[in-house]
Amino acid sequence: MSQNNEVTLYGYFRSSCSYRTRIALNIKNIPYKQHIVSLIKGEHKTPEYQAIQPLGMVPALAIDGEVISQSMAIIEYLDETRPDVPLLPSDPKGRAKVREIAYAVAMDIQPVTNMRILQTLEDDKKKAEWVQKMTSHGFKGIETLLAKTAGKYCYGDSITLADLALVPQVYNAARFNVDMTPYPIISRVNAALLEHPAFKAAHPHAQPDTPEELRNK
Amino acid sequence: MSQNNEVTLYGYFRSSCSYRTRIALNIKNIPYKQHIVSLIKGEHKTPEYQAIQPLGMVPALAIDGEVISQSMAIIEYLDETRPDVPLLPSDPKGRAKVREIAYAVAMDIQPVTNMRILQTLEDDKKKAEWVQKMTSHGFKGIETLLAKTAGKYCYGDSITLADLALVPQVYNAARFNVDMTPYPIISRVNAALLEHPAFKAAHPHAQPDTPEELRNK
Repeated sequence: MSQNNEVTLYGYFRSSCSYRTRIALNIKNIPYKQHIVSLIKGEHKTPEYQAIQPLGMVPALAIDGEVISQSMAIIEYLDETRPDVPLLPSDPKGRAKVREIAYAVAMDIQPVTNMRILQTLEDDKKKAEWVQKMTSHGFKGIETLLAKTAGKYCYGDSITLADLALVPQVYNAARFNVDMTPYPIISRVNAALLEHPAFKAAHPHAQPDTPEELRNK
Repeated sequence: MSQNNEVTLYGYFRSSCSYRTRIALNIKNIPYKQHIVSLIKGEHKTPEYQAIQPLGMVPALAIDGEVISQSMAIIEYLDETRPDVPLLPSDPKGRAKVREIAYAVAMDIQPVTNMRILQTLEDDKKKAEWVQKMTSHGFKGIETLLAKTAGKYCYGDSITLADLALVPQVYNAARFNVDMTPYPIISRVNAALLEHPAFKAAHPHAQPDTPEELRNK
C-alpha cells in the first residue's frame, strides 16, 4: 500500500494495460516503484495479490492512500489530480474524440487479444490468426478516425489518452505479425511516439522484469 | 446526423453498450430518436453505417453536430455537457472507484461476451459455458469491490456510471443462465436499479426493435 507520497505500480512488463499506465506516470513525471506481478507465473491469481486488487488483474496503482485498478481509471485519476501535463483536451468534444479512439483500442481490441483469451486457443498459429483478425478490424476503424483527428499524434500535436492506448496495441500487433501496411497514420503516429522519452522508458523491453533475451531489443 | 437540437441514437435493443447509453440519456432527460442498426441482420457492417461510424459498432450518438461512438465516451461526454444529473462523484477518488467498477464490466466482461465473440464459438452450449466463465470471473471481483462502495447502488446512494455498466451485464448474464447466488450485492443493486424509470425505459424488452416474443417480458 502507498504510504506518504510513495507510488507503487503493480504490473507486468508485457501487459498492455501496465504499459499504458507506465507511460502516463512517466509523462506526468510521477516517481514510482514497480511491484512485479508475473502473469506467466500466475501471480495475479494469488490470494496475496487479490487482497490488494480483487479483480486479479494488472495493473493496480497504490497512490494517495488508495489502490486503483483498471488502467483507464488510473489514467483519468492521474489526469484529474496531476493536471500539469494534461492527457485530455480541455473541450468536451475533443475529450470525447480522444476517449473514442482510446476505447476503440481499450474495449474493442485489447480485451479480446490479451493473454487470458489467447490461452483458450489451441496453438500459436490459431493465436496469431485471432490477434490478426481482431486487431485488423479495430485498426481499420481507428485509421479512419485518425484521418480526421491526427496531427503529429492521434489527436493533434499533443499526447493524449488515445496515444497511451495505441502504442501498446501496436507493440502487441507486431508480436503477432499483424500487417500494418493498411494503417499508415497509425504507423506514423506510433513511430513518433516511440521516440518520446516517456514512451521509451515505459517500453516492455526496458522493465525490471523484462527477460534478458528481450532486453532493449 | 444531428441538426439543431436533435439527438439520434444508433443502436440495437440487445446490445449492452446501447442499453447503457439509453439509460444515460433517460437519466439525464435528454430526448432522443432511435435509429435501429440490427446487429443480427449485419446492418453495422454496411457502408452506409460505417460512413456514420467507422468502427462499425453500436452505439453511436449524433449530438451537438458530432457523431460520437464508444458508449463510455458518449456517457462521459453527456456528463460533461449535461451535468445536472451527474453520473460521476465530484471527488477524484470517488470518480476513480466508480470508473474502476464500470471498466471492470466494460473492459473485462462485455468485450469478451458480446455477439462478435460468441459467433466464433461452435454451439449454444459452448457459448453459455464461455459467458458463464467470463462473467463469473468478473462478477467475483466486482462483488468484492462493491462490498466496500455500495449503498443502495454501486457507489453509495446515487446512480453512477458503474450502475449503467452493471445492469446490462446482469441482463446478459441472465440470458446465459449465469448463477448469481455468489453475488448478493450485485443482485440487490441490480434489482433496485431495475425499478428506476430511466432503467425501465431503457430495457432491451421495451425498445422499438424488440421482437414481439420478448416485448415487456
